[in-house]
Amino acid sequence: MSTSQGQRDAASASADDTENSRTPFYLQLRDRIAAQIATGQLSAHSRLPSERTLSEQYQTTRVTARLALGQLEAEGKLYRSNRRGWFVSPERIIYDPSLDVSFTDYVTKQGGVPRTETLQSTSLTVPAWLAQKSGLEEGSEIYHIQRRRYIDGRAILTENIYVNPAVCPGLLRFDFNQSLWKLMRHEYSVSLSDKHVTMYPTALTEPQAGILGVTPGTAGLYVNRISRNSEGVFIEFDEEFWLHDALCISVHAKG
Amino acid sequence: MSTSQGQRDAASASADDTENSRTPFYLQLRDRIAAQIATGQLSAHSRLPSERTLSEQYQTTRVTARLALGQLEAEGKLYRSNRRGWFVSPERIIYDPSLDVSFTDYVTKQGGVPRTETLQSTSLTVPAWLAQKSGLEEGSEIYHIQRRRYIDGRAILTENIYVNPAVCPGLLRFDFNQSLWKLMRHEYSVSLSDKHVTMYPTALTEPQAGILGVTPGTAGLYVNRISRNSEGVFIEFDEEFWLHDALCISVHAKG
Repeated sequence: MSTSQGQRDAASASADDTENSRTPFYLQLRDRIAAQIATGQLSAHSRLPSERTLSEQYQTTRVTARLALGQLEAEGKLYRSNRRGWFVSPERIIYDPSLDVSFTDYVTKQGGVPRTETLQSTSLTVPAWLAQKSGLEEGSEIYHIQRRRYIDGRAILTENIYVNPAVCPGLLRFDFNQSLWKLMRHEYSVSLSDKHVTMYPTALTEPQAGILGVTPGTAGLYVNRISRNSEGVFIEFDEEFWLHDALCISVHAKG
Repeated sequence: MSTSQGQRDAASASADDTENSRTPFYLQLRDRIAAQIATGQLSAHSRLPSERTLSEQYQTTRVTARLALGQLEAEGKLYRSNRRGWFVSPERIIYDPSLDVSFTDYVTKQGGVPRTETLQSTSLTVPAWLAQKSGLEEGSEIYHIQRRRYIDGRAILTENIYVNPAVCPGLLRFDFNQSLWKLMRHEYSVSLSDKHVTMYPTALTEPQAGILGVTPGTAGLYVNRISRNSEGVFIEFDEEFWLHDALCISVHAKG
């Protein structure tokens, strides 16, 4: 994956200033590992030496090594994989919410390998919060699709999608391990006219943390999107829970 | 501050499902406190009872109480203030990067009280990374302004701004405890034509953590913006380090 022009390393600006004796050793160790990532000596998805090996190599304690690794995890440079150790995070995938490009397309274009897995697809009655958001009547029917998405084999988001049956009757008979928007366009001639995207950092709680195989409380990014057609009719509400290190949001605007 | 239409509570969707005996008690306690915030029983910036009082009130340990509070902090619902305890986070300020509205204006419009404090303003030589980003020559002059911004008296972001002296000669003589864009428009007739905004969650490290009075490693949101005029001339590069619970990004798009 090529280096993104849009991404500037939020932590590197201060790295030069911190390499002095007043800097806690775990931050000095953080800088050394970060430098190995920046130069490509440690490449995306490669596995770090064990905490014990690292602590021996840098003549420090395992507690200090773990602090450095945790700091790099919080910055999005390393990730943990259940019981298998620490790995280098790949470049964040760049997502421009003002464009109409599918996950599958923008991940592929940036050199990643996307995969989508449907966890459930079912018919529900509209709850109060969704009635308020969508304009659909509380208690009326709505389709619910829950999916998990991967980049390069790593589960990086889970999503709940709520689709208006009036615009896509019989939708649940399809396979959702593909782009839902392409499906809706192709099978129902649904065309998106207006979308409103909302995003903020948050902790991943259950059930999302479990679905992504991370500890509850792990940092995440919450993204939701309401889409309507040109008559203002509600099409879908999608809410996505991303690992915090997977995504970079990019918006171009003309003043 | 009124309830935002754009914000959906990322955690509340699952709250109903988790109130059972298999749910760890700290998450049940989290749900009870979250409900008090949702109903307004605990209002923005109000102080929670001490961890000891909470643990007595809910007949649990201080460790469990602290876990529940930490979870709510990670979700952006509570914040800690140095040695003064736990407080309820106000509604996130909504920021639309596709619009051309100043911090002062969008915070005020949403019922918050903004304040800007200049930490330093100085002339620097362009470092390599900024030369690459801006198109200015490495080693040439650039203005650097560092500021801290507050909402309702709470420091919520610190920023580094780098301005092209060619478009604003003598800029450093001004007071920057105000909207920089209004100043540049008024004094230099600078008009923004193109901006590119990039955002991702990250950990706040030094010196930013210190400037905001939080522990290094605290969750944050990194935002940068490159602005050019209609001839494509570089105007400014601004990088902002936000507390993770202060901002909600909102983008409207026509398909």
